[in-house]
Amino acid sequence: MNTSYDSRPIGIFDSGVGGLTVLQELLSRFPQEGFVYLGDTARVPYGTKSPATVQRYTIQVAELLLQQNVKGLVAACNTASALGLTALRAYTTVPVLGVIEPGCQAAIRALQGKTGRIGVIGTHATIASKAYAQTLSVLLPECPVQSLACPLFVPVVEEGWTSQPSTQLLIRESLQPFIDTPVDVLILGCTHYPILKPKISSILNPGTVLVDSAQAVALSLQQLIDTQNIRPAAQREGVRFYVTDAAVRFREVAARFLPQLPIESVEVVDL
Amino acid sequence: MNTSYDSRPIGIFDSGVGGLTVLQELLSRFPQEGFVYLGDTARVPYGTKSPATVQRYTIQVAELLLQQNVKGLVAACNTASALGLTALRAYTTVPVLGVIEPGCQAAIRALQGKTGRIGVIGTHATIASKAYAQTLSVLLPECPVQSLACPLFVPVVEEGWTSQPSTQLLIRESLQPFIDTPVDVLILGCTHYPILKPKISSILNPGTVLVDSAQAVALSLQQLIDTQNIRPAAQREGVRFYVTDAAVRFREVAARFLPQLPIESVEVVDL
Repeated sequence: MNTSYDSRPIGIFDSGVGGLTVLQELLSRFPQEGFVYLGDTARVPYGTKSPATVQRYTIQVAELLLQQNVKGLVAACNTASALGLTALRAYTTVPVLGVIEPGCQAAIRALQGKTGRIGVIGTHATIASKAYAQTLSVLLPECPVQSLACPLFVPVVEEGWTSQPSTQLLIRESLQPFIDTPVDVLILGCTHYPILKPKISSILNPGTVLVDSAQAVALSLQQLIDTQNIRPAAQREGVRFYVTDAAVRFREVAARFLPQLPIESVEVVDL
Repeated sequence: MNTSYDSRPIGIFDSGVGGLTVLQELLSRFPQEGFVYLGDTARVPYGTKSPATVQRYTIQVAELLLQQNVKGLVAACNTASALGLTALRAYTTVPVLGVIEPGCQAAIRALQGKTGRIGVIGTHATIASKAYAQTLSVLLPECPVQSLACPLFVPVVEEGWTSQPSTQLLIRESLQPFIDTPVDVLILGCTHYPILKPKISSILNPGTVLVDSAQAVALSLQQLIDTQNIRPAAQREGVRFYVTDAAVRFREVAARFLPQLPIESVEVVDL
């Protein structure tokens, strides 16, 4: 078997800081890969916007990463994955990974062959798109799926307001349907939500497995690198960060909830 | 004295639905005036964005209203008023009203000539701009002013999540500095906040006067109409609504928190 190398970085994007939860996982799983991260902080949140607008933003953001000569694109944003991925795959020949299908596959693996109920939480736009419910209905037709929008979790995380009693209560009130009718697996269908994982976990039935996008995407990226034969030749060239607005705030928020993630400099780009 | 008439409408804008609290007040105070409202829902919130971006958005939004042949502009958004007003006044000869100075004047009137402490709450961008603190220091130099960002109040209102116990607790936690050190007057320096007025009021010292932008702006608009001699000749031509995204959601949110405001149709425009 021939082994070819490709030292170009992988592009990863989100509407804001949420995608950093995916980036952190990829950095630890792929120590030799270089990454370029773009947070569309001028236009966050995507989750309350219309499908046409999210699609347009997704293409614009990806275009900027493609100009950085990336070998693959990761949409580390559930809203962009749900609404913009088809358009993006038509737009570029570079391989594109989203978070929806990997997340659904991880949820099914978590059921371990047993029957059970799957819950999905996400933004208004992600839940309204029915992307998770439809993907699950194809992969596991008989499985009952309950979807719920939890839009306030995003600003709470963006503000770093994660340990306040009001946030604990907000999570409890929001997830009441899953307290009343427990599920076996809950997909955290928004890359901001893993920051609240311990709180979410403490409120639900102890047996509930939480699936987040980061681990699911890491597995998909491994498969992509293997099948496309695009391993990097040498060591990592580092991570570059771009935002569309308010770089200082981005660094502050990132430092607060992902202190172990090294963010040396952030460049502001115009979209 | 000559009386001239001007039947052109008045333009009013906000980043989202918050400015509707101002519109509602203006509609009841100026029964003969026509209004054009623009909510920049594709780019809400403004309050977490950089000064340069807020300035650019303010000009773009105003330009769209100027194309509607308005006789005056009301920036019914504290963030745009704090950061975009100087640039906007340089851009157009049409008179422009913001919410900062009227709000400060209303706060000083509320002190009724006595000495006292004034508090200001607003978005990150409004508070960081120091626009309220600086205006108050000019108008009433000796008055102690305490400013505090309460950014999570905006998404809570945009979601209509106003009567939940978690919101009550969020308000209490956020306003703790004003519980520890009471003020005589609290300026609600964000047009979303009046929706939470009863909750805010119930948490603070019973003597605290809450000042909102809507009533303050109404007084300034009356002065503007009188000095510029631009009363309308006949009855109101109605209110036109424009948004930059997700018109259905705008109507739903508006109907939820301002049920008495008649929103017949909303047109989506591109910015």
